[in-house]
Amino acid sequence: MTAPPRGFAPAEYAARTARAQAAMARAGLAGLLLTTEAEVRYFSGFHTAFWQSPTRPWFLFVPVEGKPVAIIPEIGAALMRATWLDDIRSWPAPTPGDDGISLLTELLAPLAARREALGLMKGHETHLRMPLGDYERLLAGLAGMRIADATALLRRHRMVKSEAEIAKIAHICAIGSRTFASVADIVREGQPLEDLFRAFRRAALAQGADDVPYLVGGAETGGYRDVISPPTRRPLARGDILMLDTGATWDGYFCDFDRNFAIGPPGDAARRAHDRLWRATEAGIAAARPGASCREVFRAMQAVIGESGGDIGRLGHGLGMQLTEGPSLAAWDETVISENMVLTLEPSLSYGDGRIMVHEENIVVRAEGAALLTERAPPELPVIGAAA
Amino acid sequence: MTAPPRGFAPAEYAARTARAQAAMARAGLAGLLLTTEAEVRYFSGFHTAFWQSPTRPWFLFVPVEGKPVAIIPEIGAALMRATWLDDIRSWPAPTPGDDGISLLTELLAPLAARREALGLMKGHETHLRMPLGDYERLLAGLAGMRIADATALLRRHRMVKSEAEIAKIAHICAIGSRTFASVADIVREGQPLEDLFRAFRRAALAQGADDVPYLVGGAETGGYRDVISPPTRRPLARGDILMLDTGATWDGYFCDFDRNFAIGPPGDAARRAHDRLWRATEAGIAAARPGASCREVFRAMQAVIGESGGDIGRLGHGLGMQLTEGPSLAAWDETVISENMVLTLEPSLSYGDGRIMVHEENIVVRAEGAALLTERAPPELPVIGAAA
Repeated sequence: MTAPPRGFAPAEYAARTARAQAAMARAGLAGLLLTTEAEVRYFSGFHTAFWQSPTRPWFLFVPVEGKPVAIIPEIGAALMRATWLDDIRSWPAPTPGDDGISLLTELLAPLAARREALGLMKGHETHLRMPLGDYERLLAGLAGMRIADATALLRRHRMVKSEAEIAKIAHICAIGSRTFASVADIVREGQPLEDLFRAFRRAALAQGADDVPYLVGGAETGGYRDVISPPTRRPLARGDILMLDTGATWDGYFCDFDRNFAIGPPGDAARRAHDRLWRATEAGIAAARPGASCREVFRAMQAVIGESGGDIGRLGHGLGMQLTEGPSLAAWDETVISENMVLTLEPSLSYGDGRIMVHEENIVVRAEGAALLTERAPPELPVIGAAA
Repeated sequence: MTAPPRGFAPAEYAARTARAQAAMARAGLAGLLLTTEAEVRYFSGFHTAFWQSPTRPWFLFVPVEGKPVAIIPEIGAALMRATWLDDIRSWPAPTPGDDGISLLTELLAPLAARREALGLMKGHETHLRMPLGDYERLLAGLAGMRIADATALLRRHRMVKSEAEIAKIAHICAIGSRTFASVADIVREGQPLEDLFRAFRRAALAQGADDVPYLVGGAETGGYRDVISPPTRRPLARGDILMLDTGATWDGYFCDFDRNFAIGPPGDAARRAHDRLWRATEAGIAAARPGASCREVFRAMQAVIGESGGDIGRLGHGLGMQLTEGPSLAAWDETVISENMVLTLEPSLSYGDGRIMVHEENIVVRAEGAALLTERAPPELPVIGAAA
């Protein structure tokens, strides 16, 4: 399988910027100040592992007209100069006394003087990636500036993916699917879950993933009870239900899906749980069409899960540069699904004595309906070592 | 090599909490509200990959007396109940209309009514990991509450590691050292850097790393020019200087060091650069003793690097649950080094036509001076494929 090209053409960044600028003009915003990795990369193409270090803040200002302006640590200036941006302002960070604040103040002071509105990400699923004290100092130096929440404005655009973005997500989903197809070869009874996690990560890399930032799972006799704990050294045993859920990346885009396996023949309760989740996912695939709301897709899956779903926050979400991003397949999300959204369908349920099961697939919504990006899980809970 | 135990004894969390509470009492703080992974884990032991998803906020309140209180999404409650904490309050997140805010308000309202001071992380190398809009709504509901910056208070404790923490960092440093020792076996001329990165990650996992969240590097003829770009498909060629810098993890603790290699015999400029950085690191090792200041260690390394160092922000930093954490080996950091601090020594310089070289080792400061956690790089730039 041939990998798509890395990065994006400058025209794609220009188009993203133009779309956001049109929305900014309608909303009366003079610009956006962005501080988080996905947002900065979306408009600039600046892609680096350096965000892993919390030491340095990075800023991108998207004015209502013209190209974005980068205000970044000197260590990133060479890489930023390789993007489509022209105006790159840097300082020798870290400088705790002034980590970009005077550069930002200089850039934004004219907006403040005109009492204009600056958009920030203040809403659900966002945070401000700079010291809170620096933010307060920045605002204090920008008397007259109005601050607006630009979360909805920006999310609306980011939820709908370009064909180039979809190609990257499809590529990492295919890598993930091949990795899950190899699980039967790397799993063995007696293997500590910790070692299986390591083997899974190695397999995903061998299949072509750049990285596996997210891997969770569980394995317990008859069914797992928790899906967010780190792996233990408990050995896999006959009778376990095993789940692995991975967010692997390629060129900065995630897949996010899971697979369940029975170690030896499973009990009826686990078989039935898997069957129900598989059918709930089918219902989600059928419901996820342009024009449907997120709530409708949620309810289509919930109707199959029934009361075993319990008090679940959501049954899927957007996917892209983040492992999880808007919209949410939840009762409270009325977002209308549109063509080229990439979504996870993630039904879950409880069964037996506090056991849970989670199933997950990734789709792209096309005009004619949902297309799977992941290789569909088999309808029946797969069994590893059945003949043992 | 035997791995140390995972996690920490409850007594360690109790001791950390007691130390912070004594400092809070001295500073007149009624409690700390923590939102970021390292801080929440430091006091609770709550360890999960789930932080990768930006969707859900997680809160820990550390009162000036008594055990910390967790205010967290329901999905994490089972794992939090396995920690030493007793008071765990949860809600079915995500709920964008009230993602923990009413629970926080209920918890903190008595403090606000008494006009007490709440400590938040507002300083250098921190951020607030919750929606800014939610933070503003929280404060609006807590009239009378005073907010104080607790960054210095908390960092002072986190900079000094316990023996159990040092054992974890030593373990991942040993894994990193064995991985670097295997680089000559996995590197080959003609190999795209992208594939080498993947092979390095696989090797680190095979050596026992849980994950390799951070891997950067560069390779160019005669010397690299950038250390934060993602790897390209450019094939490694004879004459290249290759650098790999990794932040691998074990049980949530990082190593952070790099190694330089010449692909075939290197030129004199690269040899001299490596020699100078190696000697700068020796000077750093000698200078990093209890009682010395970070500035003094910085200057000891800078004296060897000389003017080729350029406008460098810092030459090393703290290391632990974060790839980079305080203190900074920088001219502006007067932190006094004390026993059981874990530090990176990371001298860098420029040479030739815009080329740079970075070298890095990890140390723990003991009463008698610095002890290496990494296997010391060889004094001479190692050559791969010299006989080819």
